[in-house]
Amino acid sequence: MNDILARFAVVLSRPSHPGNIGAAARAMKTMGFSDLVLVAPRHFPDPDATAMAAGAADLLQAARVYATLDAALADRVLAVGFSARGRELSHSPESLREAAAAILEAAAGAPVALVFGNETSGLSNEELSRCQRLVSVPANPAYSSLNLAAAVQVACYEIAARANAFALAAPREGTHATRADIEGFFSHLESAAIEAGFLDPARPGRFMERMRRLFARSGLEREEVSLLRGFLDAAHRKDGKRK
Amino acid sequence: MNDILARFAVVLSRPSHPGNIGAAARAMKTMGFSDLVLVAPRHFPDPDATAMAAGAADLLQAARVYATLDAALADRVLAVGFSARGRELSHSPESLREAAAAILEAAAGAPVALVFGNETSGLSNEELSRCQRLVSVPANPAYSSLNLAAAVQVACYEIAARANAFALAAPREGTHATRADIEGFFSHLESAAIEAGFLDPARPGRFMERMRRLFARSGLEREEVSLLRGFLDAAHRKDGKRK
Repeated sequence: MNDILARFAVVLSRPSHPGNIGAAARAMKTMGFSDLVLVAPRHFPDPDATAMAAGAADLLQAARVYATLDAALADRVLAVGFSARGRELSHSPESLREAAAAILEAAAGAPVALVFGNETSGLSNEELSRCQRLVSVPANPAYSSLNLAAAVQVACYEIAARANAFALAAPREGTHATRADIEGFFSHLESAAIEAGFLDPARPGRFMERMRRLFARSGLEREEVSLLRGFLDAAHRKDGKRK
Repeated sequence: MNDILARFAVVLSRPSHPGNIGAAARAMKTMGFSDLVLVAPRHFPDPDATAMAAGAADLLQAARVYATLDAALADRVLAVGFSARGRELSHSPESLREAAAAILEAAAGAPVALVFGNETSGLSNEELSRCQRLVSVPANPAYSSLNLAAAVQVACYEIAARANAFALAAPREGTHATRADIEGFFSHLESAAIEAGFLDPARPGRFMERMRRLFARSGLEREEVSLLRGFLDAAHRKDGKRK
């Protein structure tokens, strides 16, 4: 189990159906999450919740229940609101995959909440206003109806996969690079590209933007940053040695 | 909708509970998959399947039903077997995330099947022997019990996300690099690292292995490969220009 996952709470706001609470608990536990928080559940505890939780009934036992979302988020530094409403919102949501690395970085320093709204209506504008990031699971525009437990499953999967919480074979050694490591690498890459005459600082084009997007997709470990910077240094030093 | 997803079939082998067939159909449709294939379902069609499919009943209507897995896979070039059994198997499975790029590459050329086993017993050894790749959703070793629809949801999410099938904001331009593009880039990077004196061909260490793993996580687009190779070329040419 990866310690970082212990820093996440999954917050279900105003869930109508206790079966969905149980199914969400099961989804969480399969991905290594354990802190379930309920805001004003219509029915809880409930035998339907317990039945749907299967082997995750311990999460229901330990669930924290609050009357308001504000109370549920009081100890959280970052609240990530999940919404499928996309284009209707004033702020357009980030895709889950693009946001995952930044969410994990935040969780390294402080407790985070993943917040899911009511099964029918989703998060209200007032609930969304309590969230600092707005995230969406990209889905078929012709049928984007993930049920609550499915949305929790995918969110927890994405974050656990990005954290490499459950390595299958040889575990990935090393730890995630910090924001400072990563920015250091981007500066280094940019100077190297300018130095090489590949990048014109007066007309930089989209090289750095594309590189940022590429490495945001992969995530970077410290050892990888160090290998990449070692290579950039070596390519630079070589110039001196050549005749 | 992304055309590549039409090249995938989701094959459920020997499903026991029709409700799970319906829930799997719903999971598929939310992620843009439509080709549902059933092998020897215990009950199908069935009102429980229809109820659980919600807005995805069209997938049930169109489902293809076969008596054997061999028949179901007859038109497929690649069958990807999903298994949670990890360590018991002779071949250890790849993680879904690491395999997704290669699965998509295969799907660009030929029809692919994602194969899921019975809810209780999973894929049998005989069924697994029909699959060319073996994939697992990394899960909590203390509780790895994703239900069938949850496994289908996560598999379809990972592949749709990797294909960037449903871009939220600005769609990613460009197309996936081919295997040949990617291998060309790795060769280029390796020569550049040797040329720079960073990599000793006699004692290569793990640099290239780490780079392969890093770029497998990100996936690469053609334009990115071309930018990266352009940079390597420029860094190389610069040597000549220096005094």
